[in-house]
Amino acid sequence: MLSVTILGNNSALPAFDRHPTAQVITMDEHLFLVDCGEGTQSQMAKYKIRRSKINHIFISHLHGDHYFGLIGLITSMGLLGRQQDIHLYAPSPLKEIFDMQLKVADTKLPFELKFHPLQEEGIIVKDSRYEVSAFRVFHRIECWGFKFRQIKPLRKVNPAKAVQHQVPSSFFDRLKWGEDYLTKDGHLIKNELVTEAAPKAKSYAYSADTVYNECIAEKIKGVDLLYHEATYLKDLEERAIKRFHSTTVQAATIAQKAGVSRLIIGHFSSKYEKLEEFEKEAKEIFPNTELALEGVTYRV
Amino acid sequence: MLSVTILGNNSALPAFDRHPTAQVITMDEHLFLVDCGEGTQSQMAKYKIRRSKINHIFISHLHGDHYFGLIGLITSMGLLGRQQDIHLYAPSPLKEIFDMQLKVADTKLPFELKFHPLQEEGIIVKDSRYEVSAFRVFHRIECWGFKFRQIKPLRKVNPAKAVQHQVPSSFFDRLKWGEDYLTKDGHLIKNELVTEAAPKAKSYAYSADTVYNECIAEKIKGVDLLYHEATYLKDLEERAIKRFHSTTVQAATIAQKAGVSRLIIGHFSSKYEKLEEFEKEAKEIFPNTELALEGVTYRV
Repeated sequence: MLSVTILGNNSALPAFDRHPTAQVITMDEHLFLVDCGEGTQSQMAKYKIRRSKINHIFISHLHGDHYFGLIGLITSMGLLGRQQDIHLYAPSPLKEIFDMQLKVADTKLPFELKFHPLQEEGIIVKDSRYEVSAFRVFHRIECWGFKFRQIKPLRKVNPAKAVQHQVPSSFFDRLKWGEDYLTKDGHLIKNELVTEAAPKAKSYAYSADTVYNECIAEKIKGVDLLYHEATYLKDLEERAIKRFHSTTVQAATIAQKAGVSRLIIGHFSSKYEKLEEFEKEAKEIFPNTELALEGVTYRV
Repeated sequence: MLSVTILGNNSALPAFDRHPTAQVITMDEHLFLVDCGEGTQSQMAKYKIRRSKINHIFISHLHGDHYFGLIGLITSMGLLGRQQDIHLYAPSPLKEIFDMQLKVADTKLPFELKFHPLQEEGIIVKDSRYEVSAFRVFHRIECWGFKFRQIKPLRKVNPAKAVQHQVPSSFFDRLKWGEDYLTKDGHLIKNELVTEAAPKAKSYAYSADTVYNECIAEKIKGVDLLYHEATYLKDLEERAIKRFHSTTVQAATIAQKAGVSRLIIGHFSSKYEKLEEFEKEAKEIFPNTELALEGVTYRV
């Protein structure tokens, strides 16, 4: 299972009860936090995100609307007695800021905050079942996108068939990984007999804050779901370029060129109260577009 | 006019829709922000605080629940095009943290952020009509309380009498300051004839986060309104001492020893959902006590 839950879909200035950027990626039982604007910990409480399940945090860049909520979240995790490590992937200066904030507060976290500075494109987290890679996007300051890819989704056990062939339920987890089962009286039960093929491995890309650049389409080619920022409607293309942001049409064009299956757009400018026009404009170029709405989970 | 509006009344962990510490002091047409936990800018929007009227900000200490919202507020003020200086009074390391956060974001504020490190007790802001002083309180790290004192409240113009004596409304502001008026035909209209005496000068003290210490009663002696933290109910006095916080009874005892007119208590621990017991316990010692409730304005 791969899904994305939006916690904040607005650009820098909080407005119309929309919050700065944050989203939670779920891959099977693992949660990953991507960006963490001010108020993210409250948004997590509101949308019942189990923060204890988050072991990896990714920060795209050091504009405040993408990280000002992180120090509060981290220290709250400490106050709640968390003991498990957190792996934090972010541009390198964040470590110095955090170290200073913890030092002046005379705070020692009860868990280890393992800092991984983002330095080059490529895989940054690798597990037997998924991987996360970082890629550069094109903003006013150093900025990174992240791609989440399942590697080998598990096969699905057919419990009725498994029982019929005398496979005990304690062996089901190994069935999911593709193992055959040897019964007590020496019969080999072939895995395919009691399981169904795994679903296709899924992928999701988060392109952070960026000006329109076709290289991004190359970097995220063929993902199932793409989040691309669309700070402005299409008539403000000049402003978008000047501020290193994108328009609806530009986001949709990247989705089209990259051949993704589905697009969600967010990081809406605070100048817009209503968002219908964003969806309409993007859909003209790339029909399978949805707005990134807070509290909504998009399953891949 | 002197009043205090509570924007956050909770201790470090946000809970039960209570927010970390922040309050706005109004002295006539001036607004002063005291502490600025995460989410303060949203609380300001919710309670319609005119942030453009804030020129002075005071941070008591560098635990996150008292300042993590400040960098977001400041950068939002920048995005909104503010041009007027902000005077920031805080423990000295905050400057370094801010400078670093602005530098990594490549952000230049369109106004000047004048930083005044807190160094010794005494008056830190002085105007012809009010003054603000800082005093040390007793927390785990360097921590400051703030006292707001009106110096010379303005006299009240009686418009009917003023008109009757031919004083033009353009002169009313000068009447408030106590001036007499000379009419065109040379009559002197004595000020007392057309104004009423100014109300008594009022004062308010914010004692920040502190363990119980009778020296505080000395420092804030006789203020009209005192805010004192009461993180715990009286049965957790030991825990309060260990964590450099106070209980209901301790806050009320300080109010009593200081001879203040009225007490508000706040900074409630996240372990308490309901607050009635806080009011009850404090009132047993100091009857004129109220809970500091978010969105409520306490007029002195």
